[in-house]
Amino acid sequence: MNHADLRAFARRRLPRGLFEYIDRGTEDEVALDVNRAAWDALKLLPSVLVDVSTVSIRTELFGRALAMPAIVAPTAMAGLVWLDGEVAVARAAAQMGIPFCVSTQSVTPIERIVAEAGGDIWFQLYVWKDRALSYGLVDRAQASGARVLVVTVDCPVSSNREYNERNGFGLPLRPSVRAGFDVLTHPRWLTGVLLKMLLRNGLPSFAHYPPEFRTEVTRTPASDRVDVAADLGWDDIAELRRRWRGPVVLKGIQRLEDAERAAALGLDGIVVSNHGGRVLDSSRGTADALPEIADAVGGRLTVMVDSGIRRGSDVVKALALGAKAVLVGRPVLYGAAIAGADGARRYLDILRAETERSLALAGRTSLIDLSRELVWRE
Amino acid sequence: MNHADLRAFARRRLPRGLFEYIDRGTEDEVALDVNRAAWDALKLLPSVLVDVSTVSIRTELFGRALAMPAIVAPTAMAGLVWLDGEVAVARAAAQMGIPFCVSTQSVTPIERIVAEAGGDIWFQLYVWKDRALSYGLVDRAQASGARVLVVTVDCPVSSNREYNERNGFGLPLRPSVRAGFDVLTHPRWLTGVLLKMLLRNGLPSFAHYPPEFRTEVTRTPASDRVDVAADLGWDDIAELRRRWRGPVVLKGIQRLEDAERAAALGLDGIVVSNHGGRVLDSSRGTADALPEIADAVGGRLTVMVDSGIRRGSDVVKALALGAKAVLVGRPVLYGAAIAGADGARRYLDILRAETERSLALAGRTSLIDLSRELVWRE
Amino acid sequence: MNHADLRAFARRRLPRGLFEYIDRGTEDEVALDVNRAAWDALKLLPSVLVDVSTVSIRTELFGRALAMPAIVAPTAMAGLVWLDGEVAVARAAAQMGIPFCVSTQSVTPIERIVAEAGGDIWFQLYVWKDRALSYGLVDRAQASGARVLVVTVDCPVSSNREYNERNGFGLPLRPSVRAGFDVLTHPRWLTGVLLKMLLRNGLPSFAHYPPEFRTEVTRTPASDRVDVAADLGWDDIAELRRRWRGPVVLKGIQRLEDAERAAALGLDGIVVSNHGGRVLDSSRGTADALPEIADAVGGRLTVMVDSGIRRGSDVVKALALGAKAVLVGRPVLYGAAIAGADGARRYLDILRAETERSLALAGRTSLIDLSRELVWRE
Amino acid sequence: MNHADLRAFARRRLPRGLFEYIDRGTEDEVALDVNRAAWDALKLLPSVLVDVSTVSIRTELFGRALAMPAIVAPTAMAGLVWLDGEVAVARAAAQMGIPFCVSTQSVTPIERIVAEAGGDIWFQLYVWKDRALSYGLVDRAQASGARVLVVTVDCPVSSNREYNERNGFGLPLRPSVRAGFDVLTHPRWLTGVLLKMLLRNGLPSFAHYPPEFRTEVTRTPASDRVDVAADLGWDDIAELRRRWRGPVVLKGIQRLEDAERAAALGLDGIVVSNHGGRVLDSSRGTADALPEIADAVGGRLTVMVDSGIRRGSDVVKALALGAKAVLVGRPVLYGAAIAGADGARRYLDILRAETERSLALAGRTSLIDLSRELVWRE
Ligand SMILES: Cc1cc2nc3c(=O)[nH]c(=O)nc-3n(C[C@H](O)[C@H](O)[C@H](O)COP(=O)(O)O)c2cc1C
Ligand SMILES: Cc1cc2nc3c(=O)[nH]c(=O)nc-3n(C[C@H](O)[C@H](O)[C@H](O)COP(=O)(O)O)c2cc1C
Ligand SMILES: Cc1cc2nc3c(=O)[nH]c(=O)nc-3n(C[C@H](O)[C@H](O)[C@H](O)COP(=O)(O)O)c2cc1C
Ligand SMILES: Cc1cc2nc3c(=O)[nH]c(=O)nc-3n(C[C@H](O)[C@H](O)[C@H](O)COP(=O)(O)O)c2cc1C
Repeated sequence: MNHADLRAFARRRLPRGLFEYIDRGTEDEVALDVNRAAWDALKLLPSVLVDVSTVSIRTELFGRALAMPAIVAPTAMAGLVWLDGEVAVARAAAQMGIPFCVSTQSVTPIERIVAEAGGDIWFQLYVWKDRALSYGLVDRAQASGARVLVVTVDCPVSSNREYNERNGFGLPLRPSVRAGFDVLTHPRWLTGVLLKMLLRNGLPSFAHYPPEFRTEVTRTPASDRVDVAADLGWDDIAELRRRWRGPVVLKGIQRLEDAERAAALGLDGIVVSNHGGRVLDSSRGTADALPEIADAVGGRLTVMVDSGIRRGSDVVKALALGAKAVLVGRPVLYGAAIAGADGARRYLDILRAETERSLALAGRTSLIDLSRELVWRE
Repeated sequence: MNHADLRAFARRRLPRGLFEYIDRGTEDEVALDVNRAAWDALKLLPSVLVDVSTVSIRTELFGRALAMPAIVAPTAMAGLVWLDGEVAVARAAAQMGIPFCVSTQSVTPIERIVAEAGGDIWFQLYVWKDRALSYGLVDRAQASGARVLVVTVDCPVSSNREYNERNGFGLPLRPSVRAGFDVLTHPRWLTGVLLKMLLRNGLPSFAHYPPEFRTEVTRTPASDRVDVAADLGWDDIAELRRRWRGPVVLKGIQRLEDAERAAALGLDGIVVSNHGGRVLDSSRGTADALPEIADAVGGRLTVMVDSGIRRGSDVVKALALGAKAVLVGRPVLYGAAIAGADGARRYLDILRAETERSLALAGRTSLIDLSRELVWRE
Repeated sequence: MNHADLRAFARRRLPRGLFEYIDRGTEDEVALDVNRAAWDALKLLPSVLVDVSTVSIRTELFGRALAMPAIVAPTAMAGLVWLDGEVAVARAAAQMGIPFCVSTQSVTPIERIVAEAGGDIWFQLYVWKDRALSYGLVDRAQASGARVLVVTVDCPVSSNREYNERNGFGLPLRPSVRAGFDVLTHPRWLTGVLLKMLLRNGLPSFAHYPPEFRTEVTRTPASDRVDVAADLGWDDIAELRRRWRGPVVLKGIQRLEDAERAAALGLDGIVVSNHGGRVLDSSRGTADALPEIADAVGGRLTVMVDSGIRRGSDVVKALALGAKAVLVGRPVLYGAAIAGADGARRYLDILRAETERSLALAGRTSLIDLSRELVWRE
Repeated sequence: MNHADLRAFARRRLPRGLFEYIDRGTEDEVALDVNRAAWDALKLLPSVLVDVSTVSIRTELFGRALAMPAIVAPTAMAGLVWLDGEVAVARAAAQMGIPFCVSTQSVTPIERIVAEAGGDIWFQLYVWKDRALSYGLVDRAQASGARVLVVTVDCPVSSNREYNERNGFGLPLRPSVRAGFDVLTHPRWLTGVLLKMLLRNGLPSFAHYPPEFRTEVTRTPASDRVDVAADLGWDDIAELRRRWRGPVVLKGIQRLEDAERAAALGLDGIVVSNHGGRVLDSSRGTADALPEIADAVGGRLTVMVDSGIRRGSDVVKALALGAKAVLVGRPVLYGAAIAGADGARRYLDILRAETERSLALAGRTSLIDLSRELVWRE
């Protein structure tokens, strides 16, 4: 059983529109392949005859221990792949001893996730046009107990997901004959997720929108005040830095200058990310972006990376190139789509085992041993 | 809906001979792939936290405003994909606020296009063997109101389009059983385009040939005096420069020296182009040719580029590499083949939206912000 | 008839679980392709007009003559592809005049192989957790007459063979409906190998485990004392060096530093190997690793190489890059699976003929003529 | 109609064994692809606004005019694709104004070819073990009127053509049920070629073997004295140089040193060739070998090139890289297989037209204008 098997199962389980919403990239899906190709192009140069009878992949992020150097990435509508999906995934993360990052676009409110799943909860923020409302949400996340604020900065405008449009699965979700047929032909999701949701609260809605603007996921938001702010700037970040008591991280850095600026502003971390290839299809692979960025700012803030991380060997490579941890997005959702918290944990278990094995096979016993000389590229 | 969808629709709508005439390249069609691969190999390095709430892709070319940095490329026989196709396409361009370049090989005379479509009309010239006749055509284009003269210099001899020969779709069009069957099995084109043409004026003819040599597109030109001049030289260009009151542009530059010479001659612009991969199959991708050329002469004349531009991200890349605007050929014709002016505009709308989105996602708000440092290549 | 034909025949003959156990790599099987691609990327620059009417590929390894510069690699459970498979393969090697390396995980004891096959027998050691037991095995191998001790150092922990798990073909072999069906549908293997084994000794067991821990291959070892030692270190190697009277070779070196250290320790040889792409899927091709390693330590110890060697031209390349000999794994097993010793010899015959031919076509008459200048890489 | 169409027709016409004998490469057929890839990787940088109303591809080789810079390559058993195939092909070459090179392994004697086809006849020599017999053949060729002696030096031992073996189409041809069925299912070749041959002279034989050793192509040569000499050396070449009154050319040079030595020996020419990918499958593409060789010795002797030349653009590239002419092998045979002399000429016509067109599109009017700066490679 590996990540690809989980994906194959999830594909069968979920309505096609929902599966593609999760799985695909943008435009010609070049970035999806580029991300994978960049990780695959890196080779490890293992050292032999090192005692690897005990290896540890434990680490620490912003003062808290992690059982492995991974965070569950924030994903919009994780809550749709399983009943109370966000709680399920958060629970899996807690059980595994790693952080779960709640998305602004979650269908379950952060308070419920904190209460029901526990663990190390982070909060991902899409800043809205209306800053006051946004600050309200930030305060709410802080109050709920979220520890780290992750501000996503790589999609100031919506991305071009042509297949969503075709599947009737953009945001808002638009009911259509095609979508209806899609749902009816996936009865386990229909009965196990959709009907239960409907019976309980009706159609799911975006839980973090202010109540007056909260609409079902099938409708456009009631106001453009909760649109993602296209005018987000470094000043906003400075302001968020002031408000948030705890680490602040920028997610979606692809350029050295921006990493430098984040460090200069005294932020705590960045995520080198192209949003899993979902936003700008002409992005380079994050494995290509990471080294120069980690070299430049790794000493001043915590560098994390995501986009295309699938195997333990990818984790080892990322850390050897200077990242402190990785975020994993889709594979966790595939797991959750199959079996909720157990499914999500299944993937995280595989990832942990693979990371430990890759570390041992590389002749390293702990994450501090990882450095650039382990990696070779033609 | 994207450019590839339009192409798929056009393929079903048009007789195969006509579709392939538009769609394909030459010989082994290596250049078609090379063009795309060269654009795809370029990656953008987006800047984050830039206020992109308003982005503008407006520009100005030779003293006139363009709503976006694109020109509809001159294409022979655009008039065959839709009834009065050239007028339809020109109308779309005018509605979009960008120039349309009429081809020497148009089946609609430039005067009618100017009159019925309006907008910013450019004229593309194939110089004929008989220079006097050619000058006559140039004067006629000037009189009609065409603003820019685009002299195509990359096909002094005809190119090797084996599939056209096979499809009976070289120039002249040669009626054959195969071609007849092809037409009959595409009834919408037959009744919507061909029959209407026949009822109105009989078989279409090349509208810019002098009346005494004008023949139907199914016949060889009545005289070799209207053959494309194989002996076209820099002197001819100097003469055209003298005659034309307005900007003169050379289309089909692939080599630095030629760009330098065009600049030295005081020309107004060049189009770095391999004719969409239709002429010399061993051409390098224009994305590979552009940077050195733009660096060398970009300060002295207006550099444009075409061949394989499909997405907004390609436009952003082209401008970041030093082009002032791009030309788009085939996708406009695919649109026109489906729904005339509306179809052509549909593609141009997509291109505009994508260009704006790519610009915003790159963290740039206007075209002046685009420069080499935005682009990365492995 | 070539190696690929043998593979195709073996695939039909063997139960799928067994075939895949032999044939496949690990995780995404990237290393399998990378190994081949690295050999294929090397080109030979043949010299012409050299008298190649007699070419010799004879060589000498650790004081003993070899008819060609190849050793049959140690492979676990070679004994399952044919009745008494290890004896068959060893016999083929002896007949060909090249060494056979017995695996620790052999199902036939080394004493029987030495007795029945003769020839130049090497012994491959997986050091066990319990060193005393391991030394016992080493002494036993020495006593049996094995000449060279090959210590495998590249798999301190088990590798990730997902397909084995799926096929019920990890170690231990786990009987399952699927595995049963697999066996029943391959009657020639069932009657020719399995039933005969069962009638004779019952299920095969690992012949080199100490009797008290020896279990059938379908059971987990009776004790973790015979697990491969994850804490194997350079000290262990020094100790083995002291104990073994004869050449000691490390198998599984991919990194320059480790090769240097082996040389410093006074070892006799190393095998540059990624275990045929079966252990760390992110390994670089051994053809990429070999040159720098051979340059650095080739003067001090004997460098050998394996992983992906299939054709005689690969052998010539390996030697031109500085290896003294190659090991070949899978193709010998494919041959044995089809026709026992004859089949194994069939492959070795092909390899010899190809090596001679490649040498002659390269314009070289003996292996000493091979050096770096023969090889070209883009 | 292009070279690929001719190949497709030939494939249908010829028995599979014969077609594959001509068409395929050796071992894994890597060199076939490498040859094409190397030509395709070269791009032309066309100059515009050059008067190309008359272009000439005429050239001169060893004092005799050629209508285009191409020679029909020597091919064994060309005589089997069409009745009197060698005469047909030679006739086509003569009509086109280019040389035809008769192979030592021709089934038609050179005297008949000279007499019936005329034109510029070259003779390709495989030196036999028995030098006296070989000199006899050389004298015979000289007496027949052959002008240039081409000594093939790249296959001192036979190559590894596994598919020939499989098809029963190695040399000697071995009759088999499979071969028989193959022939019966290709009736046009059976009746048009084979039966006519049988009725006339019985099975064809190698026409240049001394009468006492001449055997039908289905038998092994009667003596190993006519085996290709594996001990051919530079002394033999010096001797041939002394004997032959006229230009002497070495065919099959891939290495700079050998080219240098040929020049030092005062030879007249070399053919940079890997025998069309038929001999050493690990060869680099000849387009990669050519430039350094032409740079080094192009001033001292005539450099020619072959292997993978298909299109006129390949010819232009070869000449721009320093070759004086190219040899073309397979495509001429495809043409001949379809329609004898007419078919062969058909291909040569296409090649001429393509070469002229490519030259013109490159903005060059004659072959002397071709130099390195025309070619670009990434
Ligand atoms: C279905 C889905 C929804 C996502 N939603 C968000 C989101 O709301 N906020 C955010 O910052 N990133 C979001 N992302 C991006 C992820 O946080 C992460 O960057 C990406 O998934 C990493 O790539 P991977 O999926 O290849 O691991 C989403 C990704 C997916 C697949
Ligand atoms: C059907 C067709 C006809 C064309 N006719 C002309 C023409 O008459 N004159 C000219 O200069 N270019 C002509 N071109 C080339 C275009 O102006 C332009 O350079 C090319 O289409 C750009 O590549 P693209 O199609 O990939 O955008 C033609 C292209 C096509 C596809
Ligand atoms: C089925 C199989 C079993 C193997 N078992 C062992 C083993 O027990 N010990 C060892 O050192 N290597 C083992 N290897 C690795 C081989 O010794 C050798 O390194 C590898 O097969 C070389 O690659 P090749 O198969 O591409 O020639 C095994 C390989 C295979 C295919
Ligand atoms: C069927 C066939 C037979 C050949 N026989 C000979 C031969 O007898 N002597 C020789 O020097 N080359 C021989 N060659 C090689 C050709 O002379 C030439 O080098 C090669 O065909 C060039 O590659 P191309 O086929 O891609 O043009 C033969 C090639 C083919 C395809």
